[in-house]
Amino acid sequence: MSLFRRDPVTGRWTIFTPGKLLIENISVRHRSDTAPGFCPFCPGHESKTPNETFTIKSQDGSQWKLRVVPNKFPALSSDALPAHETYGIYDLIEGFGIHEVVIESPNHTSDFGKYSSEEARNVVRAWQERMKVLSVDKRVRYIMLFRNCGAEAGASLEHPHSQIIAIPIFPRLVADEIESSRRYYEWKERCVFCDIIHEEQAQGIRILIETENFISFVPYAARFPYETWILPRRHQSHFYKIDDKCRDEFAELLLQTLKRIDIALNLPPFNLVLHTTPCHEGEVGHYHWHLEIIPRLARIAGFEWGTGFYLNPILPEDAAKKLNSNLE
Amino acid sequence: MSLFRRDPVTGRWTIFTPGKLLIENISVRHRSDTAPGFCPFCPGHESKTPNETFTIKSQDGSQWKLRVVPNKFPALSSDALPAHETYGIYDLIEGFGIHEVVIESPNHTSDFGKYSSEEARNVVRAWQERMKVLSVDKRVRYIMLFRNCGAEAGASLEHPHSQIIAIPIFPRLVADEIESSRRYYEWKERCVFCDIIHEEQAQGIRILIETENFISFVPYAARFPYETWILPRRHQSHFYKIDDKCRDEFAELLLQTLKRIDIALNLPPFNLVLHTTPCHEGEVGHYHWHLEIIPRLARIAGFEWGTGFYLNPILPEDAAKKLNSNLE
Repeated sequence: MSLFRRDPVTGRWTIFTPGKLLIENISVRHRSDTAPGFCPFCPGHESKTPNETFTIKSQDGSQWKLRVVPNKFPALSSDALPAHETYGIYDLIEGFGIHEVVIESPNHTSDFGKYSSEEARNVVRAWQERMKVLSVDKRVRYIMLFRNCGAEAGASLEHPHSQIIAIPIFPRLVADEIESSRRYYEWKERCVFCDIIHEEQAQGIRILIETENFISFVPYAARFPYETWILPRRHQSHFYKIDDKCRDEFAELLLQTLKRIDIALNLPPFNLVLHTTPCHEGEVGHYHWHLEIIPRLARIAGFEWGTGFYLNPILPEDAAKKLNSNLE
Repeated sequence: MSLFRRDPVTGRWTIFTPGKLLIENISVRHRSDTAPGFCPFCPGHESKTPNETFTIKSQDGSQWKLRVVPNKFPALSSDALPAHETYGIYDLIEGFGIHEVVIESPNHTSDFGKYSSEEARNVVRAWQERMKVLSVDKRVRYIMLFRNCGAEAGASLEHPHSQIIAIPIFPRLVADEIESSRRYYEWKERCVFCDIIHEEQAQGIRILIETENFISFVPYAARFPYETWILPRRHQSHFYKIDDKCRDEFAELLLQTLKRIDIALNLPPFNLVLHTTPCHEGEVGHYHWHLEIIPRLARIAGFEWGTGFYLNPILPEDAAKKLNSNLE
């Protein structure tokens, strides 16, 4: 039985999953139990994963191009009831949640930066479709979408995949970010992310790519070398409400941004995390969905962990210049 | 010129140190420029470090037992003026700060868990003495004390050392923690850490060691496997105000706690971070200094970074049981 527990000091939640083989967390020391060379995500091994919740097939229907399946080693269980309980001064919730894996391609050695435009569009479509479906569940408060690429970034399986976890609580950093954005909005009657976009356009030194509806840039106070954000240029609270045309444009921008990172940094390990408004909220003026890309070049030392205070040796302007320098 | 920059969304600060060889952050890829086998912290190489700010010598004065020196590759400069500036919608501060290294022992291959009681007491005394001195500087708002042990934990030099960084800002996680504690105090008129200590004593299943004035335990909502906290049992806001007797008792408890971690987990890499009240505040009812020990067994994956939401496969009760199981 897994559990959510809340630290009474900060309100920060942790999931405990005693006895479970956790595919993401202690990947280096507890890799999956498949033998080297065997990949449960490759074509022909479909029986090694649970049944699909979403599939994209080739035109003649003979082969899959993308599969979404429940995680075989989920951090959370969809059977649990997300009831709050107390235990002395402490709070806990049973480990309800839905944990799915997006197997993005049948090709074991491919990766996002190598995808065709169609493959990139399929991945983003799968993200949106699953988030739409999962957001209907009344027990779900937030849906995390993330992608770990490379063992240094926490990926235990090489085969290109991303993950979706729907949870009954609200993750601390996203909650803080939304709360800060709300205070900014109350004071200025403007969205802080919209203001950032205008400022980035005015300064023009940290932008990677700008299209009709999206922008990618290295943020002014990036925590990590070459950290990159992608935002819709027009205010929008929820990623999953994006229309089909914008979704395809976003997929292409993400692909081109990751290609630049792959070229400039020679295929670095990276994490990709979506920040979006909690699913049961309507459109809000203060929060603007975005995607964060974090190349894992730096080993995080003690005081970043302990203080939430980061050291970054590379100025965002210089990072943007380097990412933009190898364009064909 | 290094810089502090604030993310306008969360208020989170980052230090930028363009062009500098940063000893802690990207340690694996940019190790120090000393040749392998050469250690600037070993006896005989004192000229490779700046002059001491604090020393403990052997009784006859012929040899040092511990040296504190300014970091040769500081993240921050003590010459800069910590004036706030704006740049469009963004905020910045020049990179003022004081960055010192505590060379804890002349013995290159020793480590905290192997120290004699006297060595442990000397280290804690050095921490306190330097924090006392640095806290007088009116430009300093917070003093970070941390220790990275092992390359996995971000240490670039093997020789046992800890670090002190005095900064003109208030790190985000500590600020959040203090703010949460203040709200708890306003509501309950009690310190949340004092309440945690009582709860841990009542439940009795996560405690490692308890002495007259200190307690070490695995916290209820530990983010990391075997994460361990040490707190003074009686309410105290500031680490550096600890009296000599308590300081020695704390050093011994820290030593014994690290010994248990070293035995149970076979000398894991770890980080150690002090959380204390900002230096210019007096005694406060709501905040209680403590030390966090984080063994680096897990590789942190994308969504922990992106959400502030941790996955921990080991229940704190089980962690405490294992840490307590190998006692002589």
